[in-house]
Amino acid sequence: MFLKELKFDSTKHTYIKDITKIVNETIEKANVKQGFAVVSSRHTTLGIIVNEIAEPNLLNDFISHSLANVHEDKRSTRINKHYNYPTCDYKHRCQDNPYCNEIDEDYNAAAHIRSLTFSHPSVTVPIRDGKLELGKYQQVALFEFDGRDGKGKNPIRKRTAQIWICPGESLTVVK
Amino acid sequence: MFLKELKFDSTKHTYIKDITKIVNETIEKANVKQGFAVVSSRHTTLGIIVNEIAEPNLLNDFISHSLANVHEDKRSTRINKHYNYPTCDYKHRCQDNPYCNEIDEDYNAAAHIRSLTFSHPSVTVPIRDGKLELGKYQQVALFEFDGRDGKGKNPIRKRTAQIWICPGESLTVVK
Amino acid sequence: MFLKELKFDSTKHTYIKDITKIVNETIEKANVKQGFAVVSSRHTTLGIIVNEIAEPNLLNDFISHSLANVHEDKRSTRINKHYNYPTCDYKHRCQDNPYCNEIDEDYNAAAHIRSLTFSHPSVTVPIRDGKLELGKYQQVALFEFDGRDGKGKNPIRKRTAQIWICPGESLTVVK
Repeated sequence: MFLKELKFDSTKHTYIKDITKIVNETIEKANVKQGFAVVSSRHTTLGIIVNEIAEPNLLNDFISHSLANVHEDKRSTRINKHYNYPTCDYKHRCQDNPYCNEIDEDYNAAAHIRSLTFSHPSVTVPIRDGKLELGKYQQVALFEFDGRDGKGKNPIRKRTAQIWICPGESLTVVK
Repeated sequence: MFLKELKFDSTKHTYIKDITKIVNETIEKANVKQGFAVVSSRHTTLGIIVNEIAEPNLLNDFISHSLANVHEDKRSTRINKHYNYPTCDYKHRCQDNPYCNEIDEDYNAAAHIRSLTFSHPSVTVPIRDGKLELGKYQQVALFEFDGRDGKGKNPIRKRTAQIWICPGESLTVVK
Repeated sequence: MFLKELKFDSTKHTYIKDITKIVNETIEKANVKQGFAVVSSRHTTLGIIVNEIAEPNLLNDFISHSLANVHEDKRSTRINKHYNYPTCDYKHRCQDNPYCNEIDEDYNAAAHIRSLTFSHPSVTVPIRDGKLELGKYQQVALFEFDGRDGKGKNPIRKRTAQIWICPGESLTVVK
């Protein structure tokens, strides 16, 4: 098994980041010809998707739909006079998690629900001929639902995603 | 490969149950240092999630959103004067499944759709250093969408989830 | 590892197709007793689900909900006087993908969002005793969100799904 960790600052609230190239580079470095790549998130408001990531207007549609379909917490630091999506009442507060030992003064229930609805904690993609076995319009991407820019009370979001490469035995095609 | 079965009565309609501890205990009993845990459901209205399960208010937000976003069948046994979420018309009836040979007089299309929308039939979580490789706020949980308390015509729900532990070859970290 | 490819014409817009039998036949041909089946899609508007596929009314409920919950693009070729679900504005156009070198004059942002919301790019199902380890009401299915019948400008949709069979070491049940 091989593991590559991606560590990055996530400063924009909601966005989608294509990581197909780095997954394929990791497969090449591991010299694995067939098997599976498991791409996983270490966060509860950042998930993994496989979709058509190369068309930027579609990413805007994904983001707009996620904001319209899952209402934002009325108390969220994002809510200002320019915020044009629906809001509602939630109960969650980051500080109420018993494991929380950091500054996190925000109300991000909606980000958690968007993560449950529109993404996966991990995705499993087959590897064939030394690269991801994806269709012509498929890419692997991270869907961030709760980035933080560090301008308010809350620090910049440090994120980690993991790419696990698992070699498989030789491939037999079944008719 | 190692398999641990979790069998339990599911008497509350919609709830979330953290199983992280038992998955880690199973990995320890199997003495597996690296590989993958595949947690799977044997049911179509009970799914698996990975999210922030340790904050109870957030779980209430998940449940409220799932009930508000996917409307309940007007014919459901849950609908009474205290039911405060939207309802609509569906066609599904449990008895119409050709494999159904038990008493199931309910209308649970919404539970199926919530399961599709908010959970997974199985999740794959990496194992590292003899335990689940989860982020600080991540837990593995069951999301039940259609428990039954046995008070009406329908019997108590008997549920089974499975924890599959798959050992992997030694781990190499890729730069 | 074993691979079976399913190739088929997808001419109906939105539908669900049970593939449980062919997955089990592939496991039998591969003579695998325990391990995992990974069923994956090569498309961004066709996903995989595990649910109660044997009850046709429930499939109609799934489809109706997916159309009602994720609004169709106003410009879509599906929109006519008989279309009874909500519509809205999106930005995505198939032709705007830099990899697009085929005729695709449609507006299918909604199909992409339905695929993200209601299905998976791949699902992992355990294999036990030479067949899929599914519950009594579970089947594995393809959820098509954007079939094309070839009657307008766009050609018939050619689709491919893949069934990957991965043998596992002998099974130990953990108490």
